[in-house]
Amino acid sequence: MADQTRDPAALVDAAVGGDRGALARLLSAVEQGGDQARAVGQLTYPRGGSAYVVGITGAPGAGKSTLTNAVVGTLRRGGERVAVLAIDPSSPFTGGAILGDRVRMGDHTLDEGVFIRSMATRGHLGGLALAAPEAIRVLDGVGYPWIVLETVGVGQVEVEVVGAADTVVVVVNPGWGDSVQANKAGLMEIADIFVVNKADRPGAADTRRDLEQMLDLSPVAGSGGWRPPVVATTATTGEGVDALRQAITAHREHLVTTGELSQRRRRRLDSELHRILAERLRERAASLAEGSRFEQVRDAVADRRLDPWSATDELLGAEGP
Amino acid sequence: MADQTRDPAALVDAAVGGDRGALARLLSAVEQGGDQARAVGQLTYPRGGSAYVVGITGAPGAGKSTLTNAVVGTLRRGGERVAVLAIDPSSPFTGGAILGDRVRMGDHTLDEGVFIRSMATRGHLGGLALAAPEAIRVLDGVGYPWIVLETVGVGQVEVEVVGAADTVVVVVNPGWGDSVQANKAGLMEIADIFVVNKADRPGAADTRRDLEQMLDLSPVAGSGGWRPPVVATTATTGEGVDALRQAITAHREHLVTTGELSQRRRRRLDSELHRILAERLRERAASLAEGSRFEQVRDAVADRRLDPWSATDELLGAEGP
Repeated sequence: MADQTRDPAALVDAAVGGDRGALARLLSAVEQGGDQARAVGQLTYPRGGSAYVVGITGAPGAGKSTLTNAVVGTLRRGGERVAVLAIDPSSPFTGGAILGDRVRMGDHTLDEGVFIRSMATRGHLGGLALAAPEAIRVLDGVGYPWIVLETVGVGQVEVEVVGAADTVVVVVNPGWGDSVQANKAGLMEIADIFVVNKADRPGAADTRRDLEQMLDLSPVAGSGGWRPPVVATTATTGEGVDALRQAITAHREHLVTTGELSQRRRRRLDSELHRILAERLRERAASLAEGSRFEQVRDAVADRRLDPWSATDELLGAEGP
Repeated sequence: MADQTRDPAALVDAAVGGDRGALARLLSAVEQGGDQARAVGQLTYPRGGSAYVVGITGAPGAGKSTLTNAVVGTLRRGGERVAVLAIDPSSPFTGGAILGDRVRMGDHTLDEGVFIRSMATRGHLGGLALAAPEAIRVLDGVGYPWIVLETVGVGQVEVEVVGAADTVVVVVNPGWGDSVQANKAGLMEIADIFVVNKADRPGAADTRRDLEQMLDLSPVAGSGGWRPPVVATTATTGEGVDALRQAITAHREHLVTTGELSQRRRRRLDSELHRILAERLRERAASLAEGSRFEQVRDAVADRRLDPWSATDELLGAEGP
């Protein structure tokens, strides 16, 4: 049989059977991109489609990790397995940052039903915007019914990545203009649920009211008639986390009953296919513009035996179908 | 016979015969990009290769137009025809800005041996970085032995465009840190000749000395052992313009005798072919990611009958060779 330490098919079988080490290695392959990532994706994709993805985003310091931790706890009470994918474009560390993961997700490190993974980009040319959806599909394909996608910051990439979740939770804190900041970063448009975390601090009620007023002014907030609820939590004590869980469940039901879930996923698939196409053609352009074939054609152009347009025709034609 | 008012081949014949209106229309076709631009390029490219291109760049207000005007005058004294291409990415006006062209090139508007053209981007998808070299090839192909390429500003695009000249003249003025500005904009690296214009103003000697010191510190300045000379001019009176003409001629001789001219042109061709390839593949990605074929494939992926990688394989394969 194939060497289980290297063969993607064997790793997928092992991961489906609950081998977390095998799953970690599949995700490393995805992060690195290339043929291995593709093989892993092709093996896991047909098995997927039943996972539900919850995205949690917000400014640094808003308490996203603690909130993620608490959400994982409430989801686990349903008995289903949960995978956590923490997205950090700025980090040079990836799956290797196990100690960090264990510290931040302290409650769940001994729980066999919880899989935790940090993700940055190692070699994946398309960056996190391509690697993160692939990682989600792997977690889906090996059988995690819940995937919690947490971003570390709120940069463009993170907003793009978290926008691929089925339910997007935007976390703000009581106090000065957090909601304004959320608006600036484009978070208002992608939020399905707002959480005012650290709600035991002064100003929580004001922040809730600000958000509600902002929602009053944006009639198209959310999708298909869904108005994002504003939930107050104190993640450190667990206060409000059940209400958040209920809001997530309500949003999921809304998406399913309105048919919006499959429409959303189809739109996301559109933009992901766009990205893959663009990335593959970019790679192709780079590979066409080097090597002896390119130099031959370039020399023919330099000698005016060929014009630049026919030259690129030749290079594009020479690549095969 | 073909309608001479539209057929590119007839326009090229007319332009080669000296019809400036026909040449203007060829350049408009180039600016607009697309199939017409390509046809014009294919017709003119085999005829070219003997023009010499002088680029003139520098900060706005440095007197580039007046200097260009004066350089055209000295080149014309040799009896050869001169084409001027003024590059202005910020302008919404293009070849239509004839009045402006006549005003700025006042000395030469009645000279049949001088062709003047302003260029912005109208429809060309690749922007001026692709359109300007194409325009130069047309001017070359219809028989102008000298092409003067003048940029209006010193933005990234202009530096890129003027870098396609055989001899690059960088214009600075006496006074505060112009040379430092030139350094910042990346002009030091592309300069073959420095001109201190408005040399009748205070500080001209200081600016020359600054430039020479900067050149002392950059052993690789210029190419193939060429140290850029620093020429002082007063373009409004013509002072120093003959010295500039001599510097241009000396640089041309240097490029020819060292073989650097053909090497330079080959390197430029490389980067131009890269740009054309990237642009064509970008257009292809956009066209692949729309239409009923795309939707069929996308739906197959949504239903998990196809994985995203095989889907892009199919889309890329379906485009034909």
